[in-house]
Amino acid sequence: MKNEQLSNSTIFPLGEKVQAYFTGDAYLQMVFTDPAPLNTVIGNVTFAPGARNNWHAHQIGQVLLVTGGNGWYQEEGKPARSLTTGDVVNIPPNVKHWHGATKDSWFVHLAMTPGTTDWFEAVDDAWFDEL
Amino acid sequence: MKNEQLSNSTIFPLGEKVQAYFTGDAYLQMVFTDPAPLNTVIGNVTFAPGARNNWHAHQIGQVLLVTGGNGWYQEEGKPARSLTTGDVVNIPPNVKHWHGATKDSWFVHLAMTPGTTDWFEAVDDAWFDEL
Repeated sequence: MKNEQLSNSTIFPLGEKVQAYFTGDAYLQMVFTDPAPLNTVIGNVTFAPGARNNWHAHQIGQVLLVTGGNGWYQEEGKPARSLTTGDVVNIPPNVKHWHGATKDSWFVHLAMTPGTTDWFEAVDDAWFDEL
Repeated sequence: MKNEQLSNSTIFPLGEKVQAYFTGDAYLQMVFTDPAPLNTVIGNVTFAPGARNNWHAHQIGQVLLVTGGNGWYQEEGKPARSLTTGDVVNIPPNVKHWHGATKDSWFVHLAMTPGTTDWFEAVDDAWFDEL
């Protein structure tokens, strides 16, 4: 991980290393979990270069706000979308997808997740290396 | 406005200058306005040093995520709370309050506002200068 760049992008705390459903080093800090006034919790997710989450789907959907670095968002059957600071992604309900850092960059986003997430298989190295 | 510092903090677009209910120079860019999956819109608000919004209240509440600079949040009848990068504020419904930059710093926050806002009088210079 490029620590200098990461420290420049760290707005919200890094939090704890994610232990499941991810490939590579990723970190999660919940920044908002109150029951009101939003219908969602908010987590700050930081991916080391090459790190990404497994294929998964959100039963209600999810919104990503990218706060630093460069990454990918890919829905099943579609080309990967390149993401960078300031990008916003509205992920539809029950659409299988993954997100994570590029090979060469850290990547940080806020994730607003109003419902339950269903987790599937990892994004394997052969798939990721094609990007 | 300290442009160099502001540019370092600009994650989401600056947007347009706010024309009403603010004192000093402030800018608003809506970053999320889709009807689903969140119960809220999300705006990026940037305050020049000394800029602040009028006293106001949110009928459902509001959540602030501070992404840069230094500012104040004050509820009526309470001491002002100092805010800096990474701070999160859960503003209760129907509580009269204001927020804005310190005298010497720009200030940037995301604002998640699920309902209607009621606007009141400006935070006058005499009040602000006491901080």
